[in-house]
Amino acid sequence: MDELEYQEGRTELGKLGKFALIDRLTEEFPIVNASTLRGVGDDCAVIGGKGLCTVVTTQQMVEHIHFDMTYTPLKHLGYKAVAIALSNIAAMNARPRQILVAVSVSNRFSVEALEELYAGIRFCCERYDVDLVGGDTSSSRTGMVITVTAIGEVEQDRITYRSGARLHDLICCSGDLGSAYSGLLVLEREKVTFQADPNFQPDLDSYDYVLERYLKPEPRFDIVDILRQRDIIPTSMIDVSDGLASELLHLCKESHCGCEVYEERIPIDYQTTRVCSEMSQNMIPTSNALNGGEDYELLFTISQADYEKVKDSTEIHIIGHITEEGSPAVMVTPQNTTINLVAQGWQGTTDDDND
Amino acid sequence: MDELEYQEGRTELGKLGKFALIDRLTEEFPIVNASTLRGVGDDCAVIGGKGLCTVVTTQQMVEHIHFDMTYTPLKHLGYKAVAIALSNIAAMNARPRQILVAVSVSNRFSVEALEELYAGIRFCCERYDVDLVGGDTSSSRTGMVITVTAIGEVEQDRITYRSGARLHDLICCSGDLGSAYSGLLVLEREKVTFQADPNFQPDLDSYDYVLERYLKPEPRFDIVDILRQRDIIPTSMIDVSDGLASELLHLCKESHCGCEVYEERIPIDYQTTRVCSEMSQNMIPTSNALNGGEDYELLFTISQADYEKVKDSTEIHIIGHITEEGSPAVMVTPQNTTINLVAQGWQGTTDDDND
Repeated sequence: MDELEYQEGRTELGKLGKFALIDRLTEEFPIVNASTLRGVGDDCAVIGGKGLCTVVTTQQMVEHIHFDMTYTPLKHLGYKAVAIALSNIAAMNARPRQILVAVSVSNRFSVEALEELYAGIRFCCERYDVDLVGGDTSSSRTGMVITVTAIGEVEQDRITYRSGARLHDLICCSGDLGSAYSGLLVLEREKVTFQADPNFQPDLDSYDYVLERYLKPEPRFDIVDILRQRDIIPTSMIDVSDGLASELLHLCKESHCGCEVYEERIPIDYQTTRVCSEMSQNMIPTSNALNGGEDYELLFTISQADYEKVKDSTEIHIIGHITEEGSPAVMVTPQNTTINLVAQGWQGTTDDDND
Repeated sequence: MDELEYQEGRTELGKLGKFALIDRLTEEFPIVNASTLRGVGDDCAVIGGKGLCTVVTTQQMVEHIHFDMTYTPLKHLGYKAVAIALSNIAAMNARPRQILVAVSVSNRFSVEALEELYAGIRFCCERYDVDLVGGDTSSSRTGMVITVTAIGEVEQDRITYRSGARLHDLICCSGDLGSAYSGLLVLEREKVTFQADPNFQPDLDSYDYVLERYLKPEPRFDIVDILRQRDIIPTSMIDVSDGLASELLHLCKESHCGCEVYEERIPIDYQTTRVCSEMSQNMIPTSNALNGGEDYELLFTISQADYEKVKDSTEIHIIGHITEEGSPAVMVTPQNTTINLVAQGWQGTTDDDND
């Protein structure tokens, strides 16, 4: 019996929801240092410097919650743990510089297994020119927990918060959405089949894209570079970790506005569409894009004046526009039906809030 | 059955030891950014700035490994998680500025329980003028894990690494040693008694000091301030998290030197001595100081030229001196016996290396 379960005036964690919980836990923390330009409440914290600002974020991955060792190679896990932390740096329009990694594992892992994990961490560091500058390792009696703290730099006038979207701004996203969740659906399906028949050999070749999207996501610094090259500073930005709907609601809340996105404009890969049709007649790809999460694409808004600078990009998709304060966040279907967006991101999945 | 347990060429984690493991895991990470002045291998990473440097460290506390909920109030736990991260900042001779906190917990914790945890975090932030600037929370199917990343600032010419101790330097430590471990011994004893007889009411009043030392350690920024006021820059510094012996060995290894400390100079509180005599005839207080850990005092070396500046301090104790390269790290007893120091810090306890 655990005494923590028998308290008077108890509020269940599930009742509050993650963001409300974070608000509740952090609302009384004042900012006292002049160098703290931005604390809790965005993708990264910002620490003042002259000209260049340091941005920093921390991201935890917990076994059984964020990953399943049955189908997650350790090297991929290490890579992904770093990639999703770096994605927060990209979401600030910054460049990554350093990471710190804290890992707790039980003795069921061997040194070689941890080396595999670190090989993946190193691979991601090399890919994005990031230095591993510290960390911590400790025992665990149970599952593995990996916490990555990432540090980046950006000129103060280029920092992009969630709060800057203005009326009539264009809503853009990179890459495609819903594919990571489709990859997870495939892996979960194969796991069930394998558990029923251990001789089963999964054939995953035709799902290579969605599997890679789930197992080895990439932070979109190429988009950060494109924006710089084209002389665009987004008015607001966030990365897509909990699904498009959740992220749009974040942008609208922080920017005090509404939004309208068009269903047919939401970029969806054909493998995502195929997985959906295989899984269930009722599963529509748009739903994966809105609610799936873990795509780690960038969702951002730009001034209409910048339209000409992005309209030819194959990697940046204009999916809608910002509406006035008090308007809801909605998706318009091809049949011109308007659907209110609600946040349905995975419970327990990695959230990339820095709050 | 877990396939991780059945690998060929497996090296057991326990065989390698934590520091060797960290060396092995991190040796292939190059430093590629000019701004990374110091990465893995000291108490904090150092990130270059003009004049002021940013120092950053991350520290993980894992339930059942670093803390036992039976006798650790959540408020104390939150305070301690921050305090031990800040202690690393102090060990660089820096001032703390920001923290990020990542917590994973299971549903057995209520919102109120987490609020207690965060109340302790906040209390420590307020005590040391630190801003909470970010973090992450996630579910856990099992125990609680708290990861605190701390960021500090220091002028580049005042940064104190582990590697600067020179021949004949004086070895100093703050406060007293072995008391935190003595507090833990008392708590463990009371737990066993309580488990045998649930009606047992522990009387802990006469152990207040050692209990507070274990449950609510304080980073020694007062020592950092004293050093500044007296115009002293230590030649090397580390905080005492794994016991005096382990930390002395770290300083000697990194500074390529030996050392000699005098048993009667090691500061030990009378409660530590009393707990030892209660526990066993064979338990000597010096052993708790050498091997107990979690005192979070500062251990540092100063040039002999600075002797006059510290000799009257009640908070700084000169316990020995640095010997030449190739000499062992030893303790000299009052009977003039020389004992080679060996690292026996707790297995699984919090280590405050930034590696």
